[in-house]
Order: sequence, then structure tokens, then C-alpha cells
Amino acid sequence: MTSDPVRLGVAGLGRAFMLMVPTFDADPRVKLVAAAAPRQESRDAFEREYGGTGHETIEALCADPAVEAVYIATPHQMHVDHVLAAAKAGKHILVEKPLAISMEDADRMVSAARDAGVHLIVGPSHSFDPPVDLAARLIESGEFGQLRMIQALNYTDFLYRPRRPEELRTEEGGGVLFSQAIHQIDVVRRLAGGMAENIFAMTGAWDPKRPTEGAFTALMTFQGGCFANLTYSGYAHFDSDIWMNDVGELGQVKKAGSYGGARRALMDLNPDDEARLKTTRTFGSGTTVDAAHNEHFGPVIALCDRADLKLTPDGIEVFGDTERSFIEAPFGPAPRRTVIDALVGAVRNDEPPAQTGEWGLASLEVCHAILQSAASGQPVALQRQCRTSQQEPTE
Amino acid sequence: MTSDPVRLGVAGLGRAFMLMVPTFDADPRVKLVAAAAPRQESRDAFEREYGGTGHETIEALCADPAVEAVYIATPHQMHVDHVLAAAKAGKHILVEKPLAISMEDADRMVSAARDAGVHLIVGPSHSFDPPVDLAARLIESGEFGQLRMIQALNYTDFLYRPRRPEELRTEEGGGVLFSQAIHQIDVVRRLAGGMAENIFAMTGAWDPKRPTEGAFTALMTFQGGCFANLTYSGYAHFDSDIWMNDVGELGQVKKAGSYGGARRALMDLNPDDEARLKTTRTFGSGTTVDAAHNEHFGPVIALCDRADLKLTPDGIEVFGDTERSFIEAPFGPAPRRTVIDALVGAVRNDEPPAQTGEWGLASLEVCHAILQSAASGQPVALQRQCRTSQQEPTE
Ligand SMILES: NC(=O)c1ccc[n+]([C@@H]2O[C@H](COP(=O)([O-])OP(=O)(O)OC[C@H]3O[C@@H](n4cnc5c(N)ncnc54)[C@H](O)[C@@H]3O)[C@@H](O)[C@H]2O)c1
Ligand SMILES: NC(=O)c1ccc[n+]([C@@H]2O[C@H](COP(=O)([O-])OP(=O)(O)OC[C@H]3O[C@@H](n4cnc5c(N)ncnc54)[C@H](O)[C@@H]3O)[C@@H](O)[C@H]2O)c1
Repeated sequence: MTSDPVRLGVAGLGRAFMLMVPTFDADPRVKLVAAAAPRQESRDAFEREYGGTGHETIEALCADPAVEAVYIATPHQMHVDHVLAAAKAGKHILVEKPLAISMEDADRMVSAARDAGVHLIVGPSHSFDPPVDLAARLIESGEFGQLRMIQALNYTDFLYRPRRPEELRTEEGGGVLFSQAIHQIDVVRRLAGGMAENIFAMTGAWDPKRPTEGAFTALMTFQGGCFANLTYSGYAHFDSDIWMNDVGELGQVKKAGSYGGARRALMDLNPDDEARLKTTRTFGSGTTVDAAHNEHFGPVIALCDRADLKLTPDGIEVFGDTERSFIEAPFGPAPRRTVIDALVGAVRNDEPPAQTGEWGLASLEVCHAILQSAASGQPVALQRQCRTSQQEPTE
Repeated sequence: MTSDPVRLGVAGLGRAFMLMVPTFDADPRVKLVAAAAPRQESRDAFEREYGGTGHETIEALCADPAVEAVYIATPHQMHVDHVLAAAKAGKHILVEKPLAISMEDADRMVSAARDAGVHLIVGPSHSFDPPVDLAARLIESGEFGQLRMIQALNYTDFLYRPRRPEELRTEEGGGVLFSQAIHQIDVVRRLAGGMAENIFAMTGAWDPKRPTEGAFTALMTFQGGCFANLTYSGYAHFDSDIWMNDVGELGQVKKAGSYGGARRALMDLNPDDEARLKTTRTFGSGTTVDAAHNEHFGPVIALCDRADLKLTPDGIEVFGDTERSFIEAPFGPAPRRTVIDALVGAVRNDEPPAQTGEWGLASLEVCHAILQSAASGQPVALQRQCRTSQQEPTE
């Protein structure tokens, strides 16, 4: 049952990569063999840590024969070029969410991967979280009857974490839609089977100093009749982690006394300072998070005919007709183990994960539909949805 | 500052009246002087307890010269006739929510009260809860900047409490829309100032044995740009009181170990048995609830520019930019004190409360719009909205 570790090259050694470091370090099924990064300092740090090759460009990384698959963790707007480069070089791809900013780019990426015969996986996203996976399987089993409604909400400090300037411009993929809604959409689609039909939404861009969407609320319908309610605020006031056992998004136990920290850290910084502050949280300078539970994306409740399933960082609370119970979703050995499951499954066993390129494109469509519905005040029909590949296996 | 207690006649000695008993008994500003009830047993119990007159009909009650104001706590479908009778007799009126089932009836009731020169108050509803009142005042003060979004949710066992048959038929005012949504709408409208503009909604009627709406979710916009997200499930699985400090809707501390009780009590009952079971919770047979906190209608968060306000049974948690604080909304001396405030204000000082007939009609319009939007899949424009009278005083 053992196999060679997947030899992974990493494009982009920033914050997203940092969040994957504990996973890569702990999981013997994957080995980091190369990286591409524009900053010398990052390349050096990578070589010191992993002993592979630090390349200056994505092209050089993709041409590296040691590399079997590429993890693309560069800013949103670069995903398209970087995915096309990796596909062209015949490498399997794990690309950070969102797949792309525009639907046109997303289409090109999905086609390029298909034409090149490589797997394209979009993630990590919170649809990989073990409790989400467990809930999706429980729902699919039919044990609790039909799925009827999903409520998902998340209140965070997203808008006040240090940002690159483009992360605050919606047209360039900034704001909570492309970086945060995409997680919630992924989670909800995963639970409901993927095939969203219509969406109606409202968005809020309430801080003139950070003039991109910081909040939204949306109702969507799914094939089969289930509907979902999604709400997100990144304005750093109420923190919904108190409803997730005080466990943070990354599975860490939250520290008391840190209230208002995100906003305070940003006060009086100009955009350059802020972008520099962001760099202090990347590879070579930042510290990794200490997870003790599964990751999560805020409270999620899935209502079925015979039970409500409430996701927690440790599993599923089942509120049945007359009894309640708890089904554990074990944590570890490393965080984000399911991302490596997907990568190994695809690269070693040719098994597509739930979150394929088509899947990521469908979730991206929902982000755009939220913006469109909020602008028009009308519901938007979704055209590019797909099921999880697990539910409808490709031949 | 003292004045004679308001001499109140009660129409309907059922469950709703039972819930007001602790208030009436504890508040010296009101005195129960008469009641109307079809059942002899109830009339006798009333006379024994309060020493007033038990009448057989609403007409007799309204003709009773001892009565200054009438509290109408009969089933929804009777509100119209009973309000018209009280207005005709020149009595001030406190009518249970919803004001009526149809908008036509609601219109006739509002006109009748206006023509008769009597106050028409719709309540109690949870918009009377002291934390709601406090939050509305804080928002109106502008201290936290503009109100942007409200999220309200409530998961209860409503659909499985014992019911009269018509309470399970939507056309006759059954289901969660007319009995429960009306509370949430009242709360949200109260916080947002009343003037709802558009609503988009989905409803669920998922139990064929109780074939009326048991759940809904809705997004609505308000004049001024604020929007709100309302969700309700009465299917008795997840109970959102765990997010309200384990305090129940009526301000009671919830007992552990009662999970599934509502559904279990109903199992294998036929509709007659069920209606009889409901009667055991009314005046003369039922017991009153022991409240130790303010009432509530589930978690409500109001997002303003500089703080999120989270309502609790005891006040408002203020999540500000860099600090959090708590503002108490004191409980007592009796529960539902604010209902008596409104009654005394109207009857003794000619001050209309927030929840006038026009107000109740506007909230009822939203209930109908939810049903209409869910049926059509389209947003519905609201036409009959009004502000709270406190915000725009009538001369
Ligand atoms: N799944 C998650 O939990 C998560 C968390 C954070 C970010 N992300 C995603 O990761 C992506 C990156 O965001 P981030 O916050 O890490 O940004 P970041 O700015 O911290 O990191 C991006 C990195 O890419 C590098 N880079 C820029 N151009 C490059 C190039 N041509 N070749 C190689 N590297 C290059 C930058 O030097 C930087 O280190 C985004 O798409 C974001 O949505 C995902
Ligand atoms: N605000 C709240 O917390 C709350 C709670 C429960 C009910 N309610 C409202 O109160 C109203 C009554 O509901 P309920 O649950 O108490 O029902 P119920 O059946 O328990 O009580 C209704 C009572 O009205 C009596 N009645 C019937 N016809 C009458 C007549 N012609 N004259 C006088 N009395 C008559 C019945 O005998 C019964 O006792 C409904 O509109 C409901 O929405 C409000």
C-alpha cells in the first residue's frame, strides 16, 4: 500500500504556502522538491529547509524534471498563467482557491488541464475539512432523509488582515467574494451535491478606506429542492468562532484578550507598509499555526428530514427526532490531511477529488453571480454547475 | 406620577393569555376586570382568580362598562371580528400577533380603530423585548454609525407543539409564517426603522403529517440601504437557544435532558387529542413559565459601521472596532413589562407605541410577501411599510 511520495513543486512562498507547511512537513506521502519565488530570501529559506531547488520563475519550476505536480499558491490574478504553464509542462496541479478571477480564465485552465491529461485540483478550501466531508457522506447516505436547507455563516476579521493593494479591489479579485465566499460556496455545494440552480444576494462594501466587499448574504437553491443561506462578514467585530467551540478557522484554540487585534495592527499604516506587514507572515519570516482541531469556516447547519447536522471542528452534532448524538471527524495526524489525500489520489491513482477544475469553476460562477445579483436586485440563474466527481465518477 | 390601573378585559383565556398571566399579576398598572371565554370552566377560573366578570361573548365583554381596554388573545382568524367589536364599543385594543391573517382584514381593523379614536396595539411580539428596544435605540442614536446588516435566526420546536387543526393549514393562518416569522419580522423591522423595501424568500413544508410551512429563509432590504437575513426552522432538531446562553424564548432557563420532548409528546396523537393537549396548557389547567431573563426570539446580530450589536436575553454585547462591552437590558420586575408600558402609554397618555395597527399590518405584509416570493422565485416589493411611531411621532 505504500508508494513513493508525490514530488511537489511550489509556486509562491507566501501566506497560503505557510498555512500548508505543517501539512507538508508532517505527511510522508508528499515531498517538496522545488519552489519558484521572486524573492531570493524566500528561495534561500526554501532550499535550507527542504534541500530542493529554488527557481526564479514558474517556467523553470515546471521544467524541473524532479517535479511531478505543482502547488500554485501565487496571487489570484497569476493563477491562470501559472496553471497554463504547469499544464503545458504536463504536471498535475493543485491550485489555490479561487481557481481564477474571471470565468474566461477558469475555462481556459480547465481546458488546458484536460487537453494535457493532468489533474487539476482546486484547493485547499474548507470543503476539504474532514467534518464537511463527513457531513457530505452522511447526507448522501440518506440515513437522515432528504437534505432541505443549509445555513452557513461566518464573522471574521478578514478585511483587516494585512493585504496587497489589489486584494482590496474587487475587479482584481479583491474583497470577501473571491477569497472567502468561495470557501463557503464550496462547503455548501459540497454538502448539497454541487448542482446550484439560482442565487439571490446582497453585498456590503462599508469601509471607504477598504472599498471592496467586506460582507454578503445570499440565498441559493439546488437541484432536488434544497436551499441554502450563506452569510459572511469580514468587518472584524462579532467573531462567530465563539459558536465553534472557540476554535479558529485554522483549527487553533483562540487566545483570549486578542480582541480588535487585526484592526489595531493596521491603524495608520499606508498601503506599502501594509503589504510589507503581509510579507512578515510568509515563508522565511512568519510562524506556523498550531492546530489542535480540524479547520472550519464558521457555523454550518444542514437540515435533513430526520435530523439537523451541525458541523463542529471535531465532527458532526446530530440533532435527531428524539435523540442527539455526536459523530467524530478525527483530526490529524497532520492538518489538511485530506488535501494530500486528494493529491495522492489524483497523481498516484488517477482518482479525481471532489474539487476538480470544473468544480472550482462552478464555485467561481457563484461568486460572480452574488456580485451580479447584488448589483441587479434580481435572482441569477447558474449555468456552469457540476456535481462532486465522487458522486458522479468520470470514466 | 401614579394613575389608576388600566382596567383590562381579556378575550380568549388560552395559551397566549397564560403567557401574559405573570405580567398581569405582577404589574400594578393594570387590573383584569373581565374576560370572555366560550368554556364555562375558564370563566369560572377567571372569576375565582381575578374577581371580575366572566362573559360568554366578546360583545358582552366589550359592553362591560368596567372595561377600558381589551386584550384580544383569541385564535388568529377571530382577531378581525373581535377587534371590530372592541373598536365599535370604543375600547382601546391590545391584539395578539398577527394582527390578522389577510391584508384586507388588517386594513379594516386599522380603519376601525382610527375611526373609533381608540389605540390599537399589536402584541406582545418579541419586538417588545427590552434588548430589542435597547438595540433599536442604540442604532437610532447613531453612536455606532450606520446600520448595515441584520442577521436573525431561530431554531425551535414550534411545529411540534400541540396545535388546533387550523394552526397546521397555511390558508387559515397556520404554520411558522403567521405565528413565528411575524416575531422575527417585527424584531428586524424595529431595529431597521420599519421601512422594508424588497424581500426574497424560500419556505419549507417538509413534514407531510403537518403540511404547512415549518421553515423559511429570507433576505430583505430597507430604506437607507440596510439589509437583513432572517431564518427560521420550527422542525425541533437543532435548538438555537444554546446560542442565547441556554435561555428559552420566554426567558426561562432551559432544562437539560428534555431533548425531543415536543415530538415525543405528540407521537400517535390524533388531531382531536392534540387539540385537547393544547387546552391543558391554557388558563385553569396549565402552569405559568418561570422567567429569569428577558424573552428573546433567537440570535440577532445587527452590524453597524463601528460595531456589531449582538442581542442576548440580558442586553447587548457590543463588538466595537477595538473594544467589546456589554450594555444591560434589565429584566423585570415582571416579564413583558414593556407591553404594559405600551398599554398604559396609549390608554393613559395617548402615546402610540412602536407597534401600532399600521405597524402590525406592515409586518403582516412581509409574511405574505415571503409566501409570495417563495412561490414565484422572485423578489417582492413591499408597499405598506411604516416607521415606528416613536421615530416619526404622530401629532
Ligand atoms: N486556502 C487558504 O487557506 C488560503 C489562505 C491564504 C491565501 N490563499 C490563496 O493563496 C493565494 C496567494 O495568497 P497569499 O495570501 O498567500 O498571498 P501572498 O502575497 O502572501 O503570497 C503570494 C506569493 O506569491 C509570490 N509570487 C508572486 N509572483 C510570483 C511568481 N511569478 N512566481 C512565483 N511566486 C510568485 C509572492 O512573492 C508571494 O510570496 C491566493 O490565491 C489566495 O486566495 C489561500
Ligand atoms: N405573543 C405570544 O407569545 C403568543 C403565544 C401564543 C399565542 N399567541 C397568539 O395568541 C392567539 C391565540 O393563540 P393561542 O395559542 O393562545 O390559542 P389557544 O387555542 O390556546 O387560545 C385561544 C382561546 O380563545 C378562546 N376563544 C375561542 N373563541 C372565542 C371567542 N369567540 N371569544 C372568546 N374566546 C374565544 C378559546 O377557547 C381559547 O381558550 C393567536 O393569535 C396567537 O398567535 C401569541
